[in-house]
Amino acid sequence: MTVFLVGAGPGDPGLITARGLDLVRSCDALVYDTLVSPELVAEARDDALLVPRAGRDQPEINELLVELGSDGLEAVRLKGGDPFVFGRGGEEAIALAEAGIPFEVVPGVSALASVPAAFDIPLTHRGVAAQVTLVSGHSATGELLDFEQLARTPGTLVFFMGLRQVETIVARLLAHGKAPWTPAAVLARGTLPEAEIAESELRDLPDLARDLPQPALVVIGDVVGLRRALAAPLVATA
Amino acid sequence: MTVFLVGAGPGDPGLITARGLDLVRSCDALVYDTLVSPELVAEARDDALLVPRAGRDQPEINELLVELGSDGLEAVRLKGGDPFVFGRGGEEAIALAEAGIPFEVVPGVSALASVPAAFDIPLTHRGVAAQVTLVSGHSATGELLDFEQLARTPGTLVFFMGLRQVETIVARLLAHGKAPWTPAAVLARGTLPEAEIAESELRDLPDLARDLPQPALVVIGDVVGLRRALAAPLVATA
Repeated sequence: MTVFLVGAGPGDPGLITARGLDLVRSCDALVYDTLVSPELVAEARDDALLVPRAGRDQPEINELLVELGSDGLEAVRLKGGDPFVFGRGGEEAIALAEAGIPFEVVPGVSALASVPAAFDIPLTHRGVAAQVTLVSGHSATGELLDFEQLARTPGTLVFFMGLRQVETIVARLLAHGKAPWTPAAVLARGTLPEAEIAESELRDLPDLARDLPQPALVVIGDVVGLRRALAAPLVATA
Repeated sequence: MTVFLVGAGPGDPGLITARGLDLVRSCDALVYDTLVSPELVAEARDDALLVPRAGRDQPEINELLVELGSDGLEAVRLKGGDPFVFGRGGEEAIALAEAGIPFEVVPGVSALASVPAAFDIPLTHRGVAAQVTLVSGHSATGELLDFEQLARTPGTLVFFMGLRQVETIVARLLAHGKAPWTPAAVLARGTLPEAEIAESELRDLPDLARDLPQPALVVIGDVVGLRRALAAPLVATA
């Protein structure tokens, strides 16, 4: 009667972990996020209970997981990316712990580095970026983030789920002195076949990114400029 | 003749991706890091060329990968964690791009969140931390990092490979005004059976962490305090 909080990875079904895939295949009940690949859901047993997350708020999901565990089921809670990187896995884990239900976190490939990798952007690179800062785009509109501090932060900035807030994010960084020509990109649907990128100087990003689909990551920093070195091999001459 | 830069994950062999494992099983040549699990290396074909990384510097590895690709081999470069998060995968990718060798990055589970998860520490948590900053412990002794800025950075701080520098890291953060009672931990050999943790207030961390084994992650911030809520379920009363 263990509940497994499993990271499904960034989108490409091949990027779930070997252990995560084994658990999806063997579990009695599978509770899955909207963004999880249908191919992964299809890996569950024919007689497994399948529960889409859609339409349930976080307290309802917490309660559902506690119920499944209490019923003695081996349950997998399959979450996009990694459960503990902006995944609210901690809230589910605490609900299970408080109810005395055994649980285990099986980490996943976060969008953090895998989505940039799909567009040939390394998050860190010797001599270019020795520091990475991750923030949630959801918190960009409130007072949660200190943009004065973020504008002065060296290295790579990554905003999760930042597409809807890209205008606010860029305006606030520029207002606090971030260089307008900083290389920047919005990476949409990364690791999936329909992946799309908008790449520009920071000041031009909101215009370019307007029509991209969700989910998307906003990456700001000189590492974005490495794309060209990685994506365009020199033609070997005889 | 593709060279695959594959993340092996944080240590537990079950945490490689399904696609990464397929590639290890089918490749002609496997070049692997010292920290990669022997169980994963054993997954390679009997007739695959196995090349340990040990004793080769980065330029030699770059050259080897170019040679393997030029020889028409399907080669897997199996790297601890994720190739693009302090993994120097970008340097290997650029060397391959410049030589005109096709390559593909297959991301892995970074130690970033998976090692804290193994000790019941979420990197982000609503109301506790909305921001995560990753830096390399290797750069802590030089002038690469701005500790004045890091000491004022909200949220969770994560130092990769920070064990040898833990005294310097803590001293510099305290000197720049970081609260001495900030929850902090050194997480050694995370996701492996021999995993060990040293957990304390920031000021006491260097003493406690002295004898821990490599590799280790240093995590500083209030999320460390969530461990107790996650690890110690309340006893259900009748």
